[in-house]
Amino acid sequence: MSPSIYIAGVAMTKFGRQDASLQDLAQAAVLEAVRDAGVEWQALQASFSANVFGGMVLGQVLLRDLNLPGTPLYNVENACASGATAVHLACHALRAGAYDTVLVMGVEKLTALGGGTIPLQRNDYMTELYARSGLTLPSVYAMRATRYLHEFGVDESVLGEVAVKNRRHGALNPYAQTRTAVSIDEVMNSRMVSDPLTLLQCCPSQVDGAAALILTTKKPDGRQRPVRVLGSSVQSGRLSTTPEDILAAEITARTARIAYREACIDPADIDVIELHDAFSIAELIYYAALALCERGEAHELLRSGATSLGGRVPVNPSGGLLAKGHPLGATGIAQMVEAVWQLERRATGRQVTDAEIALTQCTGGGIAGVDHAASAVHILGL
Amino acid sequence: MSPSIYIAGVAMTKFGRQDASLQDLAQAAVLEAVRDAGVEWQALQASFSANVFGGMVLGQVLLRDLNLPGTPLYNVENACASGATAVHLACHALRAGAYDTVLVMGVEKLTALGGGTIPLQRNDYMTELYARSGLTLPSVYAMRATRYLHEFGVDESVLGEVAVKNRRHGALNPYAQTRTAVSIDEVMNSRMVSDPLTLLQCCPSQVDGAAALILTTKKPDGRQRPVRVLGSSVQSGRLSTTPEDILAAEITARTARIAYREACIDPADIDVIELHDAFSIAELIYYAALALCERGEAHELLRSGATSLGGRVPVNPSGGLLAKGHPLGATGIAQMVEAVWQLERRATGRQVTDAEIALTQCTGGGIAGVDHAASAVHILGL
Repeated sequence: MSPSIYIAGVAMTKFGRQDASLQDLAQAAVLEAVRDAGVEWQALQASFSANVFGGMVLGQVLLRDLNLPGTPLYNVENACASGATAVHLACHALRAGAYDTVLVMGVEKLTALGGGTIPLQRNDYMTELYARSGLTLPSVYAMRATRYLHEFGVDESVLGEVAVKNRRHGALNPYAQTRTAVSIDEVMNSRMVSDPLTLLQCCPSQVDGAAALILTTKKPDGRQRPVRVLGSSVQSGRLSTTPEDILAAEITARTARIAYREACIDPADIDVIELHDAFSIAELIYYAALALCERGEAHELLRSGATSLGGRVPVNPSGGLLAKGHPLGATGIAQMVEAVWQLERRATGRQVTDAEIALTQCTGGGIAGVDHAASAVHILGL
Repeated sequence: MSPSIYIAGVAMTKFGRQDASLQDLAQAAVLEAVRDAGVEWQALQASFSANVFGGMVLGQVLLRDLNLPGTPLYNVENACASGATAVHLACHALRAGAYDTVLVMGVEKLTALGGGTIPLQRNDYMTELYARSGLTLPSVYAMRATRYLHEFGVDESVLGEVAVKNRRHGALNPYAQTRTAVSIDEVMNSRMVSDPLTLLQCCPSQVDGAAALILTTKKPDGRQRPVRVLGSSVQSGRLSTTPEDILAAEITARTARIAYREACIDPADIDVIELHDAFSIAELIYYAALALCERGEAHELLRSGATSLGGRVPVNPSGGLLAKGHPLGATGIAQMVEAVWQLERRATGRQVTDAEIALTQCTGGGIAGVDHAASAVHILGL
């Protein structure tokens, strides 16, 4: 019988363009998570650090001025799923009995890299070749969007409606990069990035931020509504761009099935979701992958209002990646920070009523030529 | 009670300058480890991939043509200890019951980076500043060497004797980059890199290679001498360059103590060691850190012949990093490959007689300005 894993403390920095260094961002999130947990520094027995572009032994460097002398530190990378993967590995360690309390931290400073969706790569796996041929992330998602509209006979305004919803939510979230609600006309008339995806349907890539969690197998006495990790699943696989399965999100669907099984719940039991809306179409595709609806029904689910704040299962009450921004290493952890705030009734201004079970999902990789991906789904509950 | 963790299969490529790509190297090691284990591909439930410089979701990319569709993949980085850290995290997962059989793989292609000890860094932690002021890895180790010679009143030829021993061992190892025994005069008269460290006292940095292990909680029926992981310890900390503790190798000593305790053995029980001789002085410092001798007695232990092949506890029978080369992500795993070969009596030409317990050690980080480090110690036994 595995021990229960509790989330004893959470924190994130505001996402956005920041003057603060990578180290300042990370430390701010970690200090606040430790304060939120009300634990002593000595209670933290190990740290899991998620980051994509920072370089060698980055976690050690980021945390060197904090009171964690000598504890084990693990640097984890899994593209957009880096932060969630760090949480997953922390759960392994806690379930193995290696530690009873650990820190999980994720950070990225994308403004230091010059932006764009094609990161610098120093390996030999042909990234530039794909990118030069046009197969960048926006164009991959644009192909998915085009296929969705074609296959299910929907007007492209449905894509814009995702952005309208999430930016409306994000306007309520002080941690989001963009806090401005936008109209459907503003979304549809914003600059075209990759047809049919307009600028306001793409998450901001010029963003910095950090997020942190304290995980523990000890029931946190100080919390009125202690949140547990009910399911934690990470899978990998190949992203497909063939017409037959470009909309299947097979990796995400498989990852979610495993998480639901581990948590012993049905999709209908979920009260609130933070999912990986890097582009508007992504949210629609993941509705079906997370079994919130049948294939081809995502636009109807969206338009029913069920996934808006006030609906049956609000999706991205934080504003999601579209409003919040997507600092890779921090993203998956920040999703869980929002989920905990929702379950603990601390999501002021955007609180989902009576939320008892939350789901978070990241699916990353698939960038220009890297057709392999990682997906992570976590289910948190009271 | 934790389950036993067995090493069901091992493999490494030859280390050295390779025409093969990062992917070809990784796949060669993985294919051979799977063959060595005699397991079906379907038996591998997850993969842990160690690499420092390859880029985003590298493990997924490297393994994409192999028969591992969709299994979880974790990308792990911990500088020179990356490979050993991946093994440690795999042990967590196995002990947590998340999987019963996993792949651990490490690879690096340093020849693609242009060499040198100052890797390209894209973060904001002042690497270039330290490097420009001269605080590169060779100079840090040179300070340690100078202090050792001063404090214990030893002639610098003792440093050369480490290189002579390990290159003599390496000449017996078909997987080593340099397979030429060298004389003490050749070592001492080779080009000065950072006084008192000459070229032949520094591990080759222009090296490519990969190594892989299959870890399982199922006793491998097909192996005559199944090797188990008796202890697995990873710690972090700050490398010190003050005179008082520049020789203490505190992080490594602490990591080793934890591993000995977990394995329930004394240092005297160890039959064979693969340790992190990135520079000649490192081997001497680690003798005391691993409690093979008292502080200040390492040169006597070396000169007694105890750590040579044929001695009481041969150190680096593979040739160590000095002869074998040091492709970062692969190094820690390759140490365990050698340890398994020794324990299984497969180390043809360099076999340590009657070896029953082996120790491997990596300590990384500390590079130019990154004064935080990671250390890993594993104890393997029959």
